[in-house]
Amino acid sequence: MERVARRGEPTIAELGETAVLGRILPRLHAGDAALLGAGDDAAVVAAADGRFVVTTDLLVHGPDFRLAWSTPFELGWKAAATNLTDVAAMGARPTALVVALAAPPSTPVAVLEGIADGLREGLAALAPGAGVVGGDLSASTVLTIAVTAFGDLDDRAPVLRSGARVGDVLAHAGARGDAARGLALLFAEGTDASGQPDPDRAAEVRARHPELVRAQLAPQPPVAAGVAAALAGATAMIDVSDGLARDARRIAEASGVGLDFDGAALGADLRVAFAGAEDHGLLATFPPGTDVPAPFDVVGRVVPAPGEVLVDGRGIDAEGWDPYEGWDGRSG
Amino acid sequence: MERVARRGEPTIAELGETAVLGRILPRLHAGDAALLGAGDDAAVVAAADGRFVVTTDLLVHGPDFRLAWSTPFELGWKAAATNLTDVAAMGARPTALVVALAAPPSTPVAVLEGIADGLREGLAALAPGAGVVGGDLSASTVLTIAVTAFGDLDDRAPVLRSGARVGDVLAHAGARGDAARGLALLFAEGTDASGQPDPDRAAEVRARHPELVRAQLAPQPPVAAGVAAALAGATAMIDVSDGLARDARRIAEASGVGLDFDGAALGADLRVAFAGAEDHGLLATFPPGTDVPAPFDVVGRVVPAPGEVLVDGRGIDAEGWDPYEGWDGRSG
Repeated sequence: MERVARRGEPTIAELGETAVLGRILPRLHAGDAALLGAGDDAAVVAAADGRFVVTTDLLVHGPDFRLAWSTPFELGWKAAATNLTDVAAMGARPTALVVALAAPPSTPVAVLEGIADGLREGLAALAPGAGVVGGDLSASTVLTIAVTAFGDLDDRAPVLRSGARVGDVLAHAGARGDAARGLALLFAEGTDASGQPDPDRAAEVRARHPELVRAQLAPQPPVAAGVAAALAGATAMIDVSDGLARDARRIAEASGVGLDFDGAALGADLRVAFAGAEDHGLLATFPPGTDVPAPFDVVGRVVPAPGEVLVDGRGIDAEGWDPYEGWDGRSG
Repeated sequence: MERVARRGEPTIAELGETAVLGRILPRLHAGDAALLGAGDDAAVVAAADGRFVVTTDLLVHGPDFRLAWSTPFELGWKAAATNLTDVAAMGARPTALVVALAAPPSTPVAVLEGIADGLREGLAALAPGAGVVGGDLSASTVLTIAVTAFGDLDDRAPVLRSGARVGDVLAHAGARGDAARGLALLFAEGTDASGQPDPDRAAEVRARHPELVRAQLAPQPPVAAGVAAALAGATAMIDVSDGLARDARRIAEASGVGLDFDGAALGADLRVAFAGAEDHGLLATFPPGTDVPAPFDVVGRVVPAPGEVLVDGRGIDAEGWDPYEGWDGRSG
């Protein structure tokens, strides 16, 4: 954390838990669904139709982000964005987050303030009306952000992975491979001679490829498209976080169908589109004849090939991302 | 983690994420409130009265637990217990948890199985009917358990910290200092010559003081007492996690009253009862004349001394626990 510390900037340990929370909480909004926000033993959140959607996810320094590459603002933004997309993939409207954060005592309080700003702005951009209703602050040697996100189905049934039917239209909303392209650029050109993530070299990559770097570090997933898909009658849907191949196969297996992509609809680099993780797009199926809502593109169809992912009728290998596959044990 | 690894026992990295989840999920129950459990992008949980209570907390290897002292089962149990008590302190009935876990790739899968078993049994003992509806598995250099817990108010108002009134009865349920006594014993006698936590010496402490060690490593907080207090008309309530002095002051400040304890009601060692953290008892106030429900004991009264904590009418210093105060940076 030395890199982000500046002269005179207090650390968490110097300020103490109460004062740190006093700096962070005013930066966050509790949102429209908060009946009781932070400050008591627990929060109380509205769930008007008698149910709530919930998903949880950890972002860990090292395997999930590098402080040489991401700003604190981007960490907060991405923590919000990835969880909001899981809520959206159920066809739900995000309502609230709780955020538990563990950080080394030497962490400058400014890092936590940046994370809070990123959470707030990510919510404002991607899920207006949703807010942060509570959290926790702990000590650790590793900066860790645990987000749990909630959503409201507004009396609709959830859109599951298991509802795709042969003959359905296959559609996708969001980036296809950009996050992986951005990460590959950072690994190739944002590192020093020893291969360690380097902030100055990363800044150069960012200047040359702002959109791809942003797709990796502060993605803009199509959160509102989740509700739009549900309203249009989507039969199945998934957040594409581990690559199109792996996540398409999850729908194919859960639904007992095949998903056949049109190669021409996916752009020039099929390999990156299928294997590239962290795009956080939405892959959905709709009944035949559906006028799929923007920003979904029709990218294929559902066919009778249980558990299979195909391109132009030919099977492909499932490739994707496993949290224990790619990490070299370093942080950076 | 070497200590818990045994010959032939696979690690998370060896087994891979999918197979690890295949071993863990069957050990958990989704519970009565789960409308949709683990396996899709998010879970769906019942919230019959149109609201849900939510709290989140991180347990981190090092500052929050030592693997030389806690078994994986105890880690899971404690992760459930501490969060369930926060739900109980609102006067709510716990319904569900989500659990995000980050672990080194070298962690034996048996450690995660033990944590899952502890979560399941902790829920069964402390909040029958509640279950684990979802989770996340990530990589980290530090074993980290993030639990988010939910509860149902069953059409009642939440019991806040701010509702105590002068003249109310002050009552407490649960242990008073036992968790701190257990931790002090482990630090004094469960360490080797260099001060490092030692499993063999901890086993000896455990044999000599099973109840105090258990109060620290696998506490049994009075979770059901939260609803009982609400039904009896509790005006304020808090989970005593940071010591009776610090948490009593939180009620005193939020309510603008003083809390005057009867010294004789608190047992022999007032210092430990007031300063000792992690008991996870419930401190509540009730209208005058209330027949306080078991297992609450009357321990004092609410007096007109805004923000003050007193014993037999005399003020005491607030002491308690700050996550950044006590940690020496080591794990063990």
